[in-house]
Amino acid sequence: MMKEKNILLELREKNIVLSKNKIRESITEDNYIMQAINNIEELAKITNSLSKRLRDWYAIYLPEFSKKVSDNESFVKLVAKKNKQELMNEMQLTTSMGKDLEEKDLEPILSLAKSTSTMFELREQITTYLESVMENYCKNILTIAGAIIAAKLLEEAGSLRKLAMIPSSTMQLLGAEKALFRHLKSGSKPPKHGYIIMHPLVSKAKKSDRGKVARVLADKLSIAARADFFKGEFIGDKLKRELEAKFI
Amino acid sequence: MMKEKNILLELREKNIVLSKNKIRESITEDNYIMQAINNIEELAKITNSLSKRLRDWYAIYLPEFSKKVSDNESFVKLVAKKNKQELMNEMQLTTSMGKDLEEKDLEPILSLAKSTSTMFELREQITTYLESVMENYCKNILTIAGAIIAAKLLEEAGSLRKLAMIPSSTMQLLGAEKALFRHLKSGSKPPKHGYIIMHPLVSKAKKSDRGKVARVLADKLSIAARADFFKGEFIGDKLKRELEAKFI
Repeated sequence: MMKEKNILLELREKNIVLSKNKIRESITEDNYIMQAINNIEELAKITNSLSKRLRDWYAIYLPEFSKKVSDNESFVKLVAKKNKQELMNEMQLTTSMGKDLEEKDLEPILSLAKSTSTMFELREQITTYLESVMENYCKNILTIAGAIIAAKLLEEAGSLRKLAMIPSSTMQLLGAEKALFRHLKSGSKPPKHGYIIMHPLVSKAKKSDRGKVARVLADKLSIAARADFFKGEFIGDKLKRELEAKFI
Repeated sequence: MMKEKNILLELREKNIVLSKNKIRESITEDNYIMQAINNIEELAKITNSLSKRLRDWYAIYLPEFSKKVSDNESFVKLVAKKNKQELMNEMQLTTSMGKDLEEKDLEPILSLAKSTSTMFELREQITTYLESVMENYCKNILTIAGAIIAAKLLEEAGSLRKLAMIPSSTMQLLGAEKALFRHLKSGSKPPKHGYIIMHPLVSKAKKSDRGKVARVLADKLSIAARADFFKGEFIGDKLKRELEAKFI
């Protein structure tokens, strides 16, 4: 009786170890890619709202500068790096409507600028990381779609395996689920493209051509995803050239 | 003719200078307080969503740790400071379900932890700054309500002057505008408190007592705001003692 119980306990232990191993092994590049793209998108939102806050706050000190620099990242980095006099010289301004703040009132503004700048850098670091993961894992779709679009597609599909299995018509509409269901439910126009609208070939095409470009791009991406998943040869370059020959 | 034109131009110049001075002088502590409180609230949201992202990403590496530490700030700082082995020792864990990541896959996760930690510190720094501004500008309401609630009230009113002018019944409902209009429009129950629900005396009161506590607190805050605006003597301590004598 005692012995049986011991054997059972031992079995249980072994099972737990096996399960833990399974869980550990189930983590693949798919997970890295999905974590990275989610964080990149979160950081895009965060840098955007922090930049707006900084523009607002800094306007107490030097309101003329916000209009001068419309790009958020440049604005934040300049505020963090240069002082009021330097910025005024650059704008060829002799007086400002802004208040001359005391050190203690300026300090939190500059801290905000520096921290926001760190967030921009973090976003860049994670984007570089994402590219390096995809370079080894799915170079074909990376080459054709770029890191952000390729990662969004993979994330929406759930894994590279799943992305390789979907038909190219689904690939074309990944990310447009809302519009698709609206179409099915209420008969509005069907969507022509999902995430691939962000691709320059699609977004720069004439509006009437976009559906066609999106379809061909989705075709190539489908082929690319399969080549990536089945570890075929590198054909991204060739597919990309074909695309560009057709539409540029 | 020429001379008249010159005089007009000169007048115009002088007018612009005067207007700029007016704008410059219109910036007061009210603005500092509103900027600070807006940023504190933004950073609360940001640290929250970044912490969630970090928990998610870190779970690839050491999933057991997220459950162990429920406070976001502690979680983020521990991940940034200690390595996997140290954390496992602290949890008395010999094996983990997490994958052993290579340096390059771990790096972006730790960068996220460090940057998130910076955001927590920034929030603290701005909170300290907010307190120091209020200490000199409106010490009475600061003493009774604490920096966050007092700043929210001031921000909602628009300035210390306006906050000093509103009746205490409005003070009681500042921040509950939505519920108030819902009440007026559809006859739902009227709200009993706005931002002051965050005050420990109100939030810790029995639900049936909250309306009453909120009313008395709003009364004292009204008196305090007027003393602050009209630069009367410091009565915050006395008002606070009266409140506490009544409800603790």
